[in-house]
Amino acid sequence: MHHAMRIEEDNLGQIHLPSTCLWGIHTQRAIDNFPISGMKLNLFPEFIRALAWVKTAAARANRSLGVLSGEKARVIEEVCADIVAGRYHDAFRVDMIQGGAGTSTNMNANEVIANLGLMRMGHAPGEYDHLHPNDDVNRSQSTNDVYPTAMRLAIVSQCDDFRAAQLRLAEAFKERAEAFADIRKIGRTQLQDAVPMTLGQEFAGFAATILEDVEIIGRLSHLLLEVNLGGTAIGTRVNTPEGYAEAAVRELARVSGLEAKLATDLIEASSDTGAYVTFSGVLKRISVKLSKICNDLRLLSSGPRSGFMEIRLPAVQAGSSIMPGKVNPVIPEVVNQVAFQVIGNDLTVTMAAEAGQLQLNAFEPVIVLNVLQSMRILMHAMDTLAERCVKGIEANVSQCEGALENSLVLATMLVPHIGYSKAAKVAKIALAEGAQVVETAVKMGYGTAEEIEAMIR
Amino acid sequence: MHHAMRIEEDNLGQIHLPSTCLWGIHTQRAIDNFPISGMKLNLFPEFIRALAWVKTAAARANRSLGVLSGEKARVIEEVCADIVAGRYHDAFRVDMIQGGAGTSTNMNANEVIANLGLMRMGHAPGEYDHLHPNDDVNRSQSTNDVYPTAMRLAIVSQCDDFRAAQLRLAEAFKERAEAFADIRKIGRTQLQDAVPMTLGQEFAGFAATILEDVEIIGRLSHLLLEVNLGGTAIGTRVNTPEGYAEAAVRELARVSGLEAKLATDLIEASSDTGAYVTFSGVLKRISVKLSKICNDLRLLSSGPRSGFMEIRLPAVQAGSSIMPGKVNPVIPEVVNQVAFQVIGNDLTVTMAAEAGQLQLNAFEPVIVLNVLQSMRILMHAMDTLAERCVKGIEANVSQCEGALENSLVLATMLVPHIGYSKAAKVAKIALAEGAQVVETAVKMGYGTAEEIEAMIR
Amino acid sequence: MHHAMRIEEDNLGQIHLPSTCLWGIHTQRAIDNFPISGMKLNLFPEFIRALAWVKTAAARANRSLGVLSGEKARVIEEVCADIVAGRYHDAFRVDMIQGGAGTSTNMNANEVIANLGLMRMGHAPGEYDHLHPNDDVNRSQSTNDVYPTAMRLAIVSQCDDFRAAQLRLAEAFKERAEAFADIRKIGRTQLQDAVPMTLGQEFAGFAATILEDVEIIGRLSHLLLEVNLGGTAIGTRVNTPEGYAEAAVRELARVSGLEAKLATDLIEASSDTGAYVTFSGVLKRISVKLSKICNDLRLLSSGPRSGFMEIRLPAVQAGSSIMPGKVNPVIPEVVNQVAFQVIGNDLTVTMAAEAGQLQLNAFEPVIVLNVLQSMRILMHAMDTLAERCVKGIEANVSQCEGALENSLVLATMLVPHIGYSKAAKVAKIALAEGAQVVETAVKMGYGTAEEIEAMIR
Amino acid sequence: MHHAMRIEEDNLGQIHLPSTCLWGIHTQRAIDNFPISGMKLNLFPEFIRALAWVKTAAARANRSLGVLSGEKARVIEEVCADIVAGRYHDAFRVDMIQGGAGTSTNMNANEVIANLGLMRMGHAPGEYDHLHPNDDVNRSQSTNDVYPTAMRLAIVSQCDDFRAAQLRLAEAFKERAEAFADIRKIGRTQLQDAVPMTLGQEFAGFAATILEDVEIIGRLSHLLLEVNLGGTAIGTRVNTPEGYAEAAVRELARVSGLEAKLATDLIEASSDTGAYVTFSGVLKRISVKLSKICNDLRLLSSGPRSGFMEIRLPAVQAGSSIMPGKVNPVIPEVVNQVAFQVIGNDLTVTMAAEAGQLQLNAFEPVIVLNVLQSMRILMHAMDTLAERCVKGIEANVSQCEGALENSLVLATMLVPHIGYSKAAKVAKIALAEGAQVVETAVKMGYGTAEEIEAMIR
Repeated sequence: MHHAMRIEEDNLGQIHLPSTCLWGIHTQRAIDNFPISGMKLNLFPEFIRALAWVKTAAARANRSLGVLSGEKARVIEEVCADIVAGRYHDAFRVDMIQGGAGTSTNMNANEVIANLGLMRMGHAPGEYDHLHPNDDVNRSQSTNDVYPTAMRLAIVSQCDDFRAAQLRLAEAFKERAEAFADIRKIGRTQLQDAVPMTLGQEFAGFAATILEDVEIIGRLSHLLLEVNLGGTAIGTRVNTPEGYAEAAVRELARVSGLEAKLATDLIEASSDTGAYVTFSGVLKRISVKLSKICNDLRLLSSGPRSGFMEIRLPAVQAGSSIMPGKVNPVIPEVVNQVAFQVIGNDLTVTMAAEAGQLQLNAFEPVIVLNVLQSMRILMHAMDTLAERCVKGIEANVSQCEGALENSLVLATMLVPHIGYSKAAKVAKIALAEGAQVVETAVKMGYGTAEEIEAMIR
Repeated sequence: MHHAMRIEEDNLGQIHLPSTCLWGIHTQRAIDNFPISGMKLNLFPEFIRALAWVKTAAARANRSLGVLSGEKARVIEEVCADIVAGRYHDAFRVDMIQGGAGTSTNMNANEVIANLGLMRMGHAPGEYDHLHPNDDVNRSQSTNDVYPTAMRLAIVSQCDDFRAAQLRLAEAFKERAEAFADIRKIGRTQLQDAVPMTLGQEFAGFAATILEDVEIIGRLSHLLLEVNLGGTAIGTRVNTPEGYAEAAVRELARVSGLEAKLATDLIEASSDTGAYVTFSGVLKRISVKLSKICNDLRLLSSGPRSGFMEIRLPAVQAGSSIMPGKVNPVIPEVVNQVAFQVIGNDLTVTMAAEAGQLQLNAFEPVIVLNVLQSMRILMHAMDTLAERCVKGIEANVSQCEGALENSLVLATMLVPHIGYSKAAKVAKIALAEGAQVVETAVKMGYGTAEEIEAMIR
Repeated sequence: MHHAMRIEEDNLGQIHLPSTCLWGIHTQRAIDNFPISGMKLNLFPEFIRALAWVKTAAARANRSLGVLSGEKARVIEEVCADIVAGRYHDAFRVDMIQGGAGTSTNMNANEVIANLGLMRMGHAPGEYDHLHPNDDVNRSQSTNDVYPTAMRLAIVSQCDDFRAAQLRLAEAFKERAEAFADIRKIGRTQLQDAVPMTLGQEFAGFAATILEDVEIIGRLSHLLLEVNLGGTAIGTRVNTPEGYAEAAVRELARVSGLEAKLATDLIEASSDTGAYVTFSGVLKRISVKLSKICNDLRLLSSGPRSGFMEIRLPAVQAGSSIMPGKVNPVIPEVVNQVAFQVIGNDLTVTMAAEAGQLQLNAFEPVIVLNVLQSMRILMHAMDTLAERCVKGIEANVSQCEGALENSLVLATMLVPHIGYSKAAKVAKIALAEGAQVVETAVKMGYGTAEEIEAMIR
Repeated sequence: MHHAMRIEEDNLGQIHLPSTCLWGIHTQRAIDNFPISGMKLNLFPEFIRALAWVKTAAARANRSLGVLSGEKARVIEEVCADIVAGRYHDAFRVDMIQGGAGTSTNMNANEVIANLGLMRMGHAPGEYDHLHPNDDVNRSQSTNDVYPTAMRLAIVSQCDDFRAAQLRLAEAFKERAEAFADIRKIGRTQLQDAVPMTLGQEFAGFAATILEDVEIIGRLSHLLLEVNLGGTAIGTRVNTPEGYAEAAVRELARVSGLEAKLATDLIEASSDTGAYVTFSGVLKRISVKLSKICNDLRLLSSGPRSGFMEIRLPAVQAGSSIMPGKVNPVIPEVVNQVAFQVIGNDLTVTMAAEAGQLQLNAFEPVIVLNVLQSMRILMHAMDTLAERCVKGIEANVSQCEGALENSLVLATMLVPHIGYSKAAKVAKIALAEGAQVVETAVKMGYGTAEEIEAMIR
């Protein structure tokens, strides 16, 4: 049994493809040229969808400006609608890490759309005279405006889900903060006992710090909505009809439901990757905070018999293959690792951004891979943390309150009454004698037990 | 000859200090404990000034709330005014990289202020009964609110100068963009010849990308103005009189002229270092862009006989100790290096931020060192780039225009007329034959010379 | 139609599994707990194979020391041989990014091996009384020695392939260096024309710098072969029979064919991740060099009509969706991106290593993911670079030699004869007048044309 | 009163210098061009010394090959000996962060040596006819071989001190390990109680991990001793007499006492910065380990009343400006910060290395700054840690042993006797009932108290 084949040709020569193959020669060369990471375009449906939005918008603008026939535009739109619906993701096969500034991704889209369109029009794949990947699907476009525009929309289109995950996590902490509102405990600075607080305040702080970033993501997604569509190759609008960029961006906003707007300086916008650096930097910020929170959760739950032991994380799996009964903080641990991955990815983004040259940054493929991957694993991590850890955290009340009672740092509250130097001596003597602050202060003659107690409350 | 000495004492024992020494026992111990980087507090006058602002604000608030005498408050204020004026920077001697979350920096300020105050009051340094570093100067304060508040103000107080440097650099590029407005040249993507543009457009892009960041710095400086002053040790306001935090921050805004405001959640604010991560991230973004611009300047000026040769950078020094007459792009090169330093510093900030634990981040000293250093070297780099390079850049007009004439990518403009595939063949044949696009297209029968020329313009 | 189910139980309760499921309750909980990256264990067959080696070695050592029956040991060995042969990779389903320091990976292996063994013994999966995941398969083991031992062997087992890829790339450069041995060209420092060299020397330098690292990888793989197998939970050999560690490591070397040896200080070895930091650092070093080489290839091939134009990279795909005939350096570009990814991954490894605490580093899963991924994409990148780019590079001889003829830096060779200052003036005047060095030097009276020519050659 | 001035001139024009100024026009231009970091060459005497070694070696080689007169060579040598002795460091004034690949540093050395030589010969500074900075002092040299050679020697010359600091720190841990050899405590994995160990084993692990790196530094310093001196501008030996490179390197080894040897491929060696990446990577590795150790010390000493409390760090200063009696782990904290700085510096080195182009890396100045600074602060940090912290650490024996007694993880030792599942139940019930492992196991019928105790020991 043999497959029917078709032949395609470019400046470099001919290749054979199965006659029903949805992609064409440019995609196939790219598949062969970039056997790098094994992570294909179809791992990121949000990116494929954004590409289809761009192609739809371009087709509409081209038709309205008279440079694409109504029929071709309609076919392209219909095919893109199917792609947005997720029907043909498997035809997007180029490796996410690819040379060529995304040209292969753009051509993968152009060829798949053209071939699907051809079939819809009653032609066979490859009969590009009737609908051409470059001349029709890519009309008035260049990879250099299509690709970054799609990158930006792909990222922004995930922001709502991302913020929802942030909010769920913050909510989980808030709920626990309320439950723990009355549990007094010792605060700690530099891992040493400090002044009193409540466990509720501690958890409210976790919620607050996460909430700050919800807003920032919102603000940044606006920054990303400035696109260079219509700038084509280097931002000079070469090969576009008058008014095309404005029309295309208007259609893009319509089809995507995202408030895309045209960048002011299209030449600058063609090579600039600052927005990704900033966005990835915010993902890094979020990761730094999540990592700090998870470090705290692991510290506060250290034990079960020797450690801080102030909270108990829910047990979600047996902790050890050798130590029976051991339960480990596996959920915070996986979040820490996600944070480290995102911070590493941010460096990749930074280096790729710095490497841009002249009118283009050819390294956008590795940027979009890292940003989308970082968003994804952070979302998963936040949901996992909320669902499988935070919601089930319990306080160890007796430990919290016992430690506080016993604390030497209560001497701090004596300072306004007896001064820093005397209070320091109280603490020093109490430590040396294994005594408590109140009894020591009384013994040293700074007041009666009642008076000292009053200073401390 | 021998110096008169005084003795100071703390919980750990006594030490001897020269009787006129402006700092006290806590500072001296810190000087001894941290012989690390050799970079002392006095390298960063903006930080010392910010500390003096905080101490002034605290004294005023303490007096108004009745917990500090009018005389002591007045003396503290006067001394701080002298410090703001730059009189006693040499007394700030602790290493910038220090353990203890900044306690040693705070105590250095407390002791210097107390001793200067004592002298002003007619007492000798060390007679702390009359004005105490902790009980008076540090009244209602903790390192954990003083230090981050001063960090933030120190950073913000540099932002105006920073933005001015950004603007001067953008302005220099803009001026050159206007001068080069009519010089047509070849654009380049992926280091390969692409479609035409003007040299002015290229330089306008540099200006535009820098200008974007001026705005961002402005927005961020507001983020940094949320301070935790009054939260004391862990954000619970322990040891402060009712209303102190609000009063202190109000006074802080007054004395500094910066719109400081109280953070909403003081507990979260005590340990959170997200604002530094974000700010440092923006310095990284700026560096990435500057590095890209300088890479471009070096590329465009490569030559003088074999390279891109489109622009000439001003010669500011002989380029080589062995190759006479060689002039190198030394100014862009130094800016590249500053960018690499800032990107490295950002990682240091990130790691320090991630390492915060529970109610405090003990690693703020290395954060403030890196942020202030990054700001400083970036400012110097931007001014150096504007003054010693950009302003003197000249265009090599004949090279720009000659290369364009010769370019194969003019075939791009044929696409809307003859389609992608035929245009590709024109380019291929022209390359193979060492011919130009117009003549080749004519030869291949796609139009007369006039027609082809018309397509290309 | 419904599947037959079995029930498994642990300290947390019961779960239902399909009765033929190869994994058990611990694996299933981990699959549910870590829906993070989508990258499962089965993406890394080299890691699964290394786990099977460890389990084989442990079974043999246990049998020889009398703590595991001959039958059980034999069954475990046979099953592991199948796993090494790649038969059951699909049963390794936990996410590579997981909490718990690798316990879930170890339990995934233990459970799959136990169930496969049970079936081989004529029992049903889940009948652990006959062959127990913990008591038998994991006998004398802990995740804390199994997991890092498998990590190390997985990495080392790829080193031969890695070095072969390095050698192939170096060889490709060497072959080109020989082909280009006689092509004289201008050397360049700081992107400015410098003294003459041959294109062959340039390419030989690329080969040399790659070859240096082949040796380093070899040396490092020895460092990684120091394993802590037998240290169990924290390196104190708890729950192992006398002599177990030594026996197990001996068997491990035998089954894997790699010279594994027991670490000297097992407690240190349990928590230490320094070897990964070093190994990843070397991958970073390799990436830095590859990136620099690819930057050079892109620079040297810049053009085709306006740039350095000294070499031509083979065209492997059409370069642009809008600019017909454009051919871009897509292979070097993809290698640059791989380099950026590896450098980012190295930061992830660094952060994870720094985060280790007390007797263990719980973040090894993200370390092994990043190291194995970096190795893989680097190998692919090196092969792609060699095959699809370097081997087909051609020299543009006329450009190389023409530029040299024209160069001002030939004035350098006058220095030993007429001194630096005079030579500098020759260069300056030649530049100003658009003249060549020889004619200018003659005109300035430093010798006859023949004499000057002789100085320069 | 006015200073006598002299005039110097180069291709760019004339400048005025004080007649006694030790540096000349090239240095002065560089001082003016690079007002960047404020960190001047004279901050790094080891670098100045290495430059003087190189100049000495070159002078000797030049004389022996007949291209420099005996008198000039002798004068250069004498002056360099004075510089090595530290006499003229103040004349090295260029900013460490400089453009030009180090040319300004090299010219600073050339000019200072020439002028000091002139004075020694009875001439005035600036009378370069008698001893010329380029033609004599820089004879047969280029910045591109002088600068990296001096970088390498400067680094290597610090390695002995560095290793001594490592050894002192390891020794301090070892001494404590012996003192703590018999103190049993609970080991911890993932911050949860694990199986028993001794405090001595824990500290011995710290010593062991540090000692590993002493060896690595030793090995690496050999790598750095491969120098490119004699390669001049791009490694082709242009403008050197036959045999010069070999002679110069031989003399260099003699004058420096370091085993410098000539690199095999001088062209590769001219642009390669791999050795710095590797060396900096090892400094990173050391930092990662130190940071982990300091994190452990801070954890183990957390308290004093609520935390792990297993050890007590020596109190070296009062811990808080507000909390009297608080003593913080300030020494480990400062070491953590040094580690973060070094890790950031390593990224700067990486980026600078990656940015090298063609025959040179122009960014070596920022590389040498960061490597030397990292070495310096690490040395200071290690000595501070040893002297002010480790040596004074005391064990809290009752806490160590009490926690162990109480631990649930003793159930682990039951596994070989009663199996994993039953042991897990023992642990679970003991936890729920607040009971100890032995009593629970007895109650569950797994043996008498004596039998269970025997299993556990």
